[in-house]
Amino acid sequence: MRDSPPVTVLGIDPGTAITGYGIVRKEGRNPLTLIECGVIRTRPRDDLARRLVEIHEGVLELIRRHKPTVLSIEDIFYARNVRTTVVLGHARGAILLAAAQARLEIHEYPPAEIKKAVAGTGAATKLQIQFMVMRLLRLKSAPQPSDAADGVAAALAFALMPDLPKIEPIRLRTVL
Amino acid sequence: MRDSPPVTVLGIDPGTAITGYGIVRKEGRNPLTLIECGVIRTRPRDDLARRLVEIHEGVLELIRRHKPTVLSIEDIFYARNVRTTVVLGHARGAILLAAAQARLEIHEYPPAEIKKAVAGTGAATKLQIQFMVMRLLRLKSAPQPSDAADGVAAALAFALMPDLPKIEPIRLRTVL
Repeated sequence: MRDSPPVTVLGIDPGTAITGYGIVRKEGRNPLTLIECGVIRTRPRDDLARRLVEIHEGVLELIRRHKPTVLSIEDIFYARNVRTTVVLGHARGAILLAAAQARLEIHEYPPAEIKKAVAGTGAATKLQIQFMVMRLLRLKSAPQPSDAADGVAAALAFALMPDLPKIEPIRLRTVL
Repeated sequence: MRDSPPVTVLGIDPGTAITGYGIVRKEGRNPLTLIECGVIRTRPRDDLARRLVEIHEGVLELIRRHKPTVLSIEDIFYARNVRTTVVLGHARGAILLAAAQARLEIHEYPPAEIKKAVAGTGAATKLQIQFMVMRLLRLKSAPQPSDAADGVAAALAFALMPDLPKIEPIRLRTVL
């Protein structure tokens, strides 16, 4: 049985002010590696349309640089505050658009599913997420700010999802 | 006193399935003219990201063809159904992005303000809006479907807003 081909995943935690991202590489059975993480910041003084341009360009730039084939992103169909969620919908629209223009495969997960994939529980705190991101990627410190860690967590959610049946034949080359 | 320079306004009624638009030209004191109206339709089978690409491209195409300098669009910060409103936020994000990329001036109006500008009351029905759009632009029939009329109404809301003090000197040329 052959390993799946290597995949580069762009994980994004959308926001109009700060959009966190993480680029994670999954290569067969090797440990996952973090290629880059960070945030796209927009200026509070700018109007929403201008901020959408920054987010859209920022995402396209990341795609050009690292050539991911998958976008992994949070679903946002909850509503603690309707106005905030709708504005966030605009930012998410700009991100999905960039990903579709670049022909990435798009995977969306509810927040609790991302937390569960990364930290074992859908109720994990921000600190637990940062700790597990650090552990899973063997980093010396957690990505800062927490938005960057959330972007990485989104990428990990996809990378950690089992894509093959778990039963594997003995690999003779490894054994001999 | 000189007339304001001519303005071409792109009015949009956003939607993920059907985005209505109208392009209206305002030239001094001449009657407003409708340049084009219609809808951008997306396929129900396509995922949201693909539909955002269609909407974004559709809007850019209209801008290329008619070179409007103003986008007039409905605000959508109400929430009859949160999920619908958030999805609509994505479509609106793709539209605002296209307008900002093409450096249009963006004007946003609450739905009731558009209705009031066009039909005199914020409580106007769809039929009243269609009728007034027809009257104001001297059309033989109302734009179809109603989404197209709503796009035109958004353009009219901007075009009908007074941009100069209402007191005007007698124009001698007209009088003589």
